[in-house]
Amino acid sequence: MTLTFYDLAGADPAVRFSPHCWRVRLALAHKGLEPVSVPWRFTEKEAIAKSGGGTVPVLVSGDQWLADSWSIAVWLEETYPDRPALFAGTAGRGEALFVKQWTETVVHPAIVRMIVSDILAALDPRDRDYFRRTRESRFGGPLEEVQAGREDRLPAFRDSLAPLRATVGAQAYLGGDHPSFSDYIVFAAFQWAHTVSDLALLAPDDPIHRWLEGLRGLYDGLAAKSPRAVADGTRTS
Amino acid sequence: MTLTFYDLAGADPAVRFSPHCWRVRLALAHKGLEPVSVPWRFTEKEAIAKSGGGTVPVLVSGDQWLADSWSIAVWLEETYPDRPALFAGTAGRGEALFVKQWTETVVHPAIVRMIVSDILAALDPRDRDYFRRTRESRFGGPLEEVQAGREDRLPAFRDSLAPLRATVGAQAYLGGDHPSFSDYIVFAAFQWAHTVSDLALLAPDDPIHRWLEGLRGLYDGLAAKSPRAVADGTRTS
Repeated sequence: MTLTFYDLAGADPAVRFSPHCWRVRLALAHKGLEPVSVPWRFTEKEAIAKSGGGTVPVLVSGDQWLADSWSIAVWLEETYPDRPALFAGTAGRGEALFVKQWTETVVHPAIVRMIVSDILAALDPRDRDYFRRTRESRFGGPLEEVQAGREDRLPAFRDSLAPLRATVGAQAYLGGDHPSFSDYIVFAAFQWAHTVSDLALLAPDDPIHRWLEGLRGLYDGLAAKSPRAVADGTRTS
Repeated sequence: MTLTFYDLAGADPAVRFSPHCWRVRLALAHKGLEPVSVPWRFTEKEAIAKSGGGTVPVLVSGDQWLADSWSIAVWLEETYPDRPALFAGTAGRGEALFVKQWTETVVHPAIVRMIVSDILAALDPRDRDYFRRTRESRFGGPLEEVQAGREDRLPAFRDSLAPLRATVGAQAYLGGDHPSFSDYIVFAAFQWAHTVSDLALLAPDDPIHRWLEGLRGLYDGLAAKSPRAVADGTRTS
């Protein structure tokens, strides 16, 4: 069955930055699946209307339209049980949900306020008004002001990564010896920033780098080779 | 093989409050094991010298002396593989390590500063000088001052529990449908505070209460029935 994957794209259709889409992209690669990838923009709501929502990731398998990165990962696990596991059974899936909630309540809110203006700059011109309007409403001010002063927030952000730092300092992946969906969830947040911004989220000597580099190299360098909206070589994380 | 468990005790030997010991106590119950429980005080270093360290939990099986709650849990899992699993395999153990690191870098440091003077009051008189000296050195001031103003720190502490709140709002346990060692790790932090303090760590309507109550009731109410150093009925979490 052909899979079709709607993936958020920037002005350059090869630039893919959504953290929610990166989770799914890596989960698909983990399962050895090669979907047809469709670049999608924020304002193309009609193209994914059958999913029941207006955001990506959306995965289509036959007449099934799947939305939400977590639901898609659960579906992949149930649909392809003989391929490498994304979760350590239902108990491991429970713990992966904790990692997801940590990522979405601690990591994403901090990162988005440091890169939201960079995201805007990477967007297709058709998406910019939509993005500015919805995000300025969410953050209560101009995106340039939301992002301003980000260097001052880096120390607190780096401190908040202590649980990740301690875990990947003690073992190769959050999933132990092998990457799991929980790794992709956290990694995708860094890949989001890496794709659109030249901000160094981590200090150069942060042990998290080793783990990030490992994940970047997986699946023939899927994340490492993915084009960025900024010049390469401008940052360290 | 008889198991002997050295468990930190207060002035009342039935009062057991150590969060690291509570993890192991629940892990032992999870495996259906009933160790000989030995109340231990901070200053009884000699009694556990064979463990190679000076802190509990310590578990003794024959001539094996095991220390450190994580190492003990891993040992229990390997030694009693046919009994209910504490971890979802090695991948789930990886994710449980993240939960442990989150607990120890976010939850414990906040809680200890809100209850450290309460802990002192619960201790055996023989332990009090030791505890005050070591903790005042660690926290850089009198324990009464460290604990003072704790109500002002409650909102930030409650905010920091967002990943836990979201996870146990969506499923019964961190381990999904069944409790796992990751549940015991986080629960033990609350049980620590509950045993020595009348501070309400959570707002009355916090969904975390339901999860806490579920864990308190496990194993014939092991945690629920455990004596506290403060009068019952004085707090809500």
